[in-house]
Amino acid sequence: MENQKEFTKEIADMKTDFAQWYTDIVLKTEMADYGPVKGTMVIRPYGYALWENIQKVLDNMFKQTGHKNAYFPLFIPYSFIAKESEHVEGFAPELAMVTCVGDEPLAEKLVVRPTSETIFGSMYSKWIQSWRDLPLLLNQWANVVRWEKTTRPFLRTSEFLWQEGHTAHATQEEAEEETMRMLDIYDKFARDYLAIPMFVGRKSEKEKFAGAEKTFGIEAMMQDGKSLQSGTSHYLGQNFSKAFDIKFLDKDGAHKYVYTSSWGTSTRLIGAVIMVHGDQRGMRMPPFVAPIQTIIVPIFQNKEGVLEKAFELKSFLEKMGIRAKVDDTNQTPGWKFNEWEMKGVPVRVEIGPKDIEKNVVQIVRRDTFEKIEVNADEVKETNFIQNLLQQIHNNMLEQAEKFKQEHIKDVNTIEELKNAVDTGNFAKAPWCGSIECEEKIKEETTASSRVMPLNQDETNEYKCVCCGKKTKKKMLFAKAY
Amino acid sequence: MENQKEFTKEIADMKTDFAQWYTDIVLKTEMADYGPVKGTMVIRPYGYALWENIQKVLDNMFKQTGHKNAYFPLFIPYSFIAKESEHVEGFAPELAMVTCVGDEPLAEKLVVRPTSETIFGSMYSKWIQSWRDLPLLLNQWANVVRWEKTTRPFLRTSEFLWQEGHTAHATQEEAEEETMRMLDIYDKFARDYLAIPMFVGRKSEKEKFAGAEKTFGIEAMMQDGKSLQSGTSHYLGQNFSKAFDIKFLDKDGAHKYVYTSSWGTSTRLIGAVIMVHGDQRGMRMPPFVAPIQTIIVPIFQNKEGVLEKAFELKSFLEKMGIRAKVDDTNQTPGWKFNEWEMKGVPVRVEIGPKDIEKNVVQIVRRDTFEKIEVNADEVKETNFIQNLLQQIHNNMLEQAEKFKQEHIKDVNTIEELKNAVDTGNFAKAPWCGSIECEEKIKEETTASSRVMPLNQDETNEYKCVCCGKKTKKKMLFAKAY
Repeated sequence: MENQKEFTKEIADMKTDFAQWYTDIVLKTEMADYGPVKGTMVIRPYGYALWENIQKVLDNMFKQTGHKNAYFPLFIPYSFIAKESEHVEGFAPELAMVTCVGDEPLAEKLVVRPTSETIFGSMYSKWIQSWRDLPLLLNQWANVVRWEKTTRPFLRTSEFLWQEGHTAHATQEEAEEETMRMLDIYDKFARDYLAIPMFVGRKSEKEKFAGAEKTFGIEAMMQDGKSLQSGTSHYLGQNFSKAFDIKFLDKDGAHKYVYTSSWGTSTRLIGAVIMVHGDQRGMRMPPFVAPIQTIIVPIFQNKEGVLEKAFELKSFLEKMGIRAKVDDTNQTPGWKFNEWEMKGVPVRVEIGPKDIEKNVVQIVRRDTFEKIEVNADEVKETNFIQNLLQQIHNNMLEQAEKFKQEHIKDVNTIEELKNAVDTGNFAKAPWCGSIECEEKIKEETTASSRVMPLNQDETNEYKCVCCGKKTKKKMLFAKAY
Repeated sequence: MENQKEFTKEIADMKTDFAQWYTDIVLKTEMADYGPVKGTMVIRPYGYALWENIQKVLDNMFKQTGHKNAYFPLFIPYSFIAKESEHVEGFAPELAMVTCVGDEPLAEKLVVRPTSETIFGSMYSKWIQSWRDLPLLLNQWANVVRWEKTTRPFLRTSEFLWQEGHTAHATQEEAEEETMRMLDIYDKFARDYLAIPMFVGRKSEKEKFAGAEKTFGIEAMMQDGKSLQSGTSHYLGQNFSKAFDIKFLDKDGAHKYVYTSSWGTSTRLIGAVIMVHGDQRGMRMPPFVAPIQTIIVPIFQNKEGVLEKAFELKSFLEKMGIRAKVDDTNQTPGWKFNEWEMKGVPVRVEIGPKDIEKNVVQIVRRDTFEKIEVNADEVKETNFIQNLLQQIHNNMLEQAEKFKQEHIKDVNTIEELKNAVDTGNFAKAPWCGSIECEEKIKEETTASSRVMPLNQDETNEYKCVCCGKKTKKKMLFAKAY
């Protein structure tokens, strides 16, 4: 047969070369490719379809919580970025600058947005007059640019796609509530749709967003024990409202600065999905966002009636809202099995002449490779596939949860911390909260602080792993992408 | 009542100052606002919701015809743009250039994409190997930048949102078929969803896309008699495949260049919708893409039961798939009527204590201002509103069609042409096809060639309005945005 490939040989060993394994999956499943400009990527249809499904769910969650979409300009005057001092300090080295149009130099250089707090801020100061205009809850889906030296598809690219919410509130309390609400939405989304159990908590002062009062984040544990920041939600206090003069007339007749929040998540989530769920055979797509949820592979497809039955089943499944596809290419069934396993389709349905005779189909789960024979009417007329997708989701989430629990180590010294992260674990360590200790830990172990879990039990007292000072809080440390 | 406004006074007279009327509608309906960088705009939630509805329908039409979405990088090496000579000549003066990152100059300056034929081309040359890889049918939804001296929200801004399809085919015939298929989709979409009857045809050599063999377009007639190019579909021949070396191994064993097409439409469509359908009271939203299809205005909303009934009706309508909203703000009903008329909501439902008593609602159409009393159960339990939306759509389309027919003048001399376009018409003029005559017409009348209608009756012979040479073809000329 033409084009026959040995799939397992094509993907690097995830145990010995996790980085190459990741790249192999990204490229060979055709989720993305390298763009011509260093550090950029092309998101190919299979990766983009995953992103569209992620967008659809998140967008709906945002709208359900009262947010509206808008679109703000790509170009920001450099002077805007400079208005918030921490903000400019954090972003300056990564800023792509437009300095001319054609051959004509511009009067003021323009920044290609790395994030849009400043440009939202400038418009909010125009739109917000009174308490009646609050809260203002906007979101945008957009591309942003942050120039990076070391890049990897989905994880860190010069340009990426994301959503950024920007909200303005009359009180600190409301803005803080919003910050936590969106953090919670990210966490729920990751669990319920990506089958990823996140670490949720507060970022350290060192790791917080440039310009925020407080940053909260969700972090996922990759199968190499490293952490991937997967979404952040910032309470910005009045930092940006003061920089951009966003004031409102309150009910009491006084002019006050608003309190703002911002929150974002990006195509990076695709990297998380790959590194949490992928295996040696390739990708495993979380069922509820999978571009194809069920792949139908006809056996002896040239025999009369086989393809008809396959397409009939497809249209039944589509009517039930399942994303189904028939692979009617000229490859062998074996080739197709490999191909769709590599691409991570959660459910495979095989249908051949013998099956048709017996009015059954063969169903194979991507997560367990379990194969079962099922009555064809049951598949067409009941929620069989929906239920199976739910089971696969549950199982993938459970596996990830188990992996996560097995790879958190409670540590009490820097040596233990170093040992934990060197052997593919997260370290949960008592920490005094000082930036000095955080930096020393980073230097000695290469691990950074990830998040401080919320609602910690503070009955016990510990000693900081670094300086020995008394503390009641533990921080999660890990190597990170 | 607070915030009371006289709406009709706020919008400039469309008869005497159409340009200001347009700007007033854009700003006062809060569809868009000016961005801080000259020539940019912010698309506000009401405008963006319209764009989302446009996207949803078009995206589905693209997918139904076998296209897949992808995402290609924003930055294109300048050398790519320069590879196709007509392309670079057409776009060079409008290109925004990224020349440095932070303080570091880049080795090669990068173009912020004005369109993406070149970067798609560079990837297609990598991905396409054999006839089996064809046709390759991709689309992307993206922002593009073309620096313009004179800008107006939605019509011409430095940055705008659009979709761009890029396809590669084995044969000229298939690529030309694709070009016409997408032109037809644009035309159908405009008619069936925007209620805009388009002029469909081929652009002149002078007006075609920089790098195309042939460009086709849809043009809409604004109420001031000017034309707005609203979508284009290009047959690119082998111009880009030769520039980017996109070759495939054909069935006959020979290596051949592919034939490509590209096609796009943008947020400019929103400008078309405003200028085709708007009236002195404000916007009139085409029902099938309207952000809000039915606005429910409670009368005496503080009376017990009124708001409950209003929200009950809303949820009934939403279950039927209608985008409905209750205006329960503290404004007077009269204020609300003005507000939602200005924003162009197709159907208004008024519901007050007397209506509730009689189990009726009052319904007002935005297109005719006709008011009818309807049994409340009929509104809740039948397709009454759906049917009404369809009627409103049909009526708006008919009105636009009538306006269009009344404002096309057959002309036989340059003087007649000038007179036609000076009095708010399109001129249909015999034209020899030469660029010299086209330029002379432009110079003397300020009208440009818009499209040459397809399938013209060629039994008669005419004389070119400019040079008098014999011709069988007529071209549409108009002043244009």
